[in-house]
Amino acid sequence: MTDDNVSLITLNKPLRCIVKLGGAAVTCKHEIEKINEENLGILSMQLSQAIMASDFSKNVPGMDWSKRPGVSEISFPLDDFREQSLLESSNFIVVHGAGSFGHFQASRSGVHKGGLQLIPIVKAGFVATRISVTSLNLEIVRALAREGIPSVGMSPFASGWSTCQRNLASADISQVAMAINSGFVPVLHGDAVLDNVQGCTILSGDVIIRHLAELLKPDYVVFLTDVLGVYDRPPTDPAAVLLREIAVDEDGNWSIVKPVLQNNSKQVEITVAAHDTTGGMVTKIAEAALIAKLGIDVYIVKAATDHSLRALKGEIKTEIPDDWLGTVIKSSPS
Amino acid sequence: MTDDNVSLITLNKPLRCIVKLGGAAVTCKHEIEKINEENLGILSMQLSQAIMASDFSKNVPGMDWSKRPGVSEISFPLDDFREQSLLESSNFIVVHGAGSFGHFQASRSGVHKGGLQLIPIVKAGFVATRISVTSLNLEIVRALAREGIPSVGMSPFASGWSTCQRNLASADISQVAMAINSGFVPVLHGDAVLDNVQGCTILSGDVIIRHLAELLKPDYVVFLTDVLGVYDRPPTDPAAVLLREIAVDEDGNWSIVKPVLQNNSKQVEITVAAHDTTGGMVTKIAEAALIAKLGIDVYIVKAATDHSLRALKGEIKTEIPDDWLGTVIKSSPS
Repeated sequence: MTDDNVSLITLNKPLRCIVKLGGAAVTCKHEIEKINEENLGILSMQLSQAIMASDFSKNVPGMDWSKRPGVSEISFPLDDFREQSLLESSNFIVVHGAGSFGHFQASRSGVHKGGLQLIPIVKAGFVATRISVTSLNLEIVRALAREGIPSVGMSPFASGWSTCQRNLASADISQVAMAINSGFVPVLHGDAVLDNVQGCTILSGDVIIRHLAELLKPDYVVFLTDVLGVYDRPPTDPAAVLLREIAVDEDGNWSIVKPVLQNNSKQVEITVAAHDTTGGMVTKIAEAALIAKLGIDVYIVKAATDHSLRALKGEIKTEIPDDWLGTVIKSSPS
Repeated sequence: MTDDNVSLITLNKPLRCIVKLGGAAVTCKHEIEKINEENLGILSMQLSQAIMASDFSKNVPGMDWSKRPGVSEISFPLDDFREQSLLESSNFIVVHGAGSFGHFQASRSGVHKGGLQLIPIVKAGFVATRISVTSLNLEIVRALAREGIPSVGMSPFASGWSTCQRNLASADISQVAMAINSGFVPVLHGDAVLDNVQGCTILSGDVIIRHLAELLKPDYVVFLTDVLGVYDRPPTDPAAVLLREIAVDEDGNWSIVKPVLQNNSKQVEITVAAHDTTGGMVTKIAEAALIAKLGIDVYIVKAATDHSLRALKGEIKTEIPDDWLGTVIKSSPS
């Protein structure tokens, strides 16, 4: 599908995990361009623990030495680094959504529909959308760096990702691989990109993750969101049931393994489809199913909880503990 | 020198100008991570006038629709865009230095000396440097966008620029060219990048400009700085003389054409060399000479002045007006 030279992509050691920071988990949905600082802080700490697995008893010094709003001093923990040897760390990639960043700019101007060279507001919207999503990217990179994660922002547009009629056409994975091989954690994001046919569009974080997963074969993928996982109907419905395990067959069809629901599966599918108009859960399962089909486990879990920490650490990998809340999507054994 | 596939790089129309926003011109030199807002605002307006040459009587609506500190409302000039047709614009590239951003982080950790995989503080410094320079990049992109320039940030590290023993080894120009062909103004910057031999280093804005100029052959290059131009000695010296025109021969040797100095040229060279320890002027002339050698005129001029506006508009191209203050560096006719 894309023009990647796959042969060039070799990681020094396997990719352990791709993490999606859902827009709903890291931003305040109903307030334009507002970060959910509390969630972002906690999940940065959790990611740090998952990545720097071996020796977390040591305090990991921060890597964001820039000024923060309202703080006149720069933090520069030189002494902490003097005492430190390079920590053994796992290969992770972080991809985040836009949440309340970029959405307003993109939707009001119609960036996803294209028309870059024809409609002045689309061009302006492209610029405005990139400003908004890259400012979120910068803040997420900084939050991760403050927890000692060697995070580097890699904007898909700048890295040469582009689409053809909204489908991914080109994506330079080699730069992501080189960053990982140098010990960094690349932080990508949904972005406005060029489209060969319609001029421009929005490339979603989910499509980015699927492409990275196909080429770099992580051990598992974690989607951090603002609800416990995938439900059979809107989570606000008191009768909603958390789906604990979903199996995906070779053709990409999925079925609910756990819990065993009283309705037959056909009915559940319809209920989930109804949910889709509000929560996009079918889309979410469909994206996750495409990854699971590759033999890569996907965990959908609420950000900044004990459940997300266990998912990030890979503790769900061998078996799903009874006290773990979230949704596992995996390929059904053939 | 690099692995660019030059044959892939074709611009729809010629590149008019590469502009260097010197770190000293856009930041406050003596205060860490402080932008010179006044200069940045004026030079953004001047760039807007130079790029959108044809019809500047119309008000160009802004393209930064993100929240600004202390302002709760988002600006969204939809009505202004409704009335607007796409403006005829010239192809420009902006490259900025770091000034008081990134310098502290890079120098304290020794990013330029490498050792990424061996020394914890180098890795941390790489992360911290990129955070600082990308935050400056974001602010510059926003300032340009507010003046209606369709600016898009393109971080060299994310775009796959890398070095080998500190010399440029790889640089993906095709993405820059595609952005230009889509009507955008790419905004690049000096960055921390990977180095094949020493692990990492700092890639300067000046090296980026030289490489872009070699491949994309702009009509002229403008260096915006915080003094009127190049002097024969430190500008603080009351006897300092502004060098108006410097000629570069095929071998890259340069000589002062205007003014005709009383000292012989050998003496001047020594004086300039002495100046180098404080102001880096010989380095600046040497970089500019490498570009001028390609037949591309280089103007070194004080940012946010009437002189910089004229240089950006290309008014210096045919002849140097007597009332224009700045330094022109061009190849000597053979």
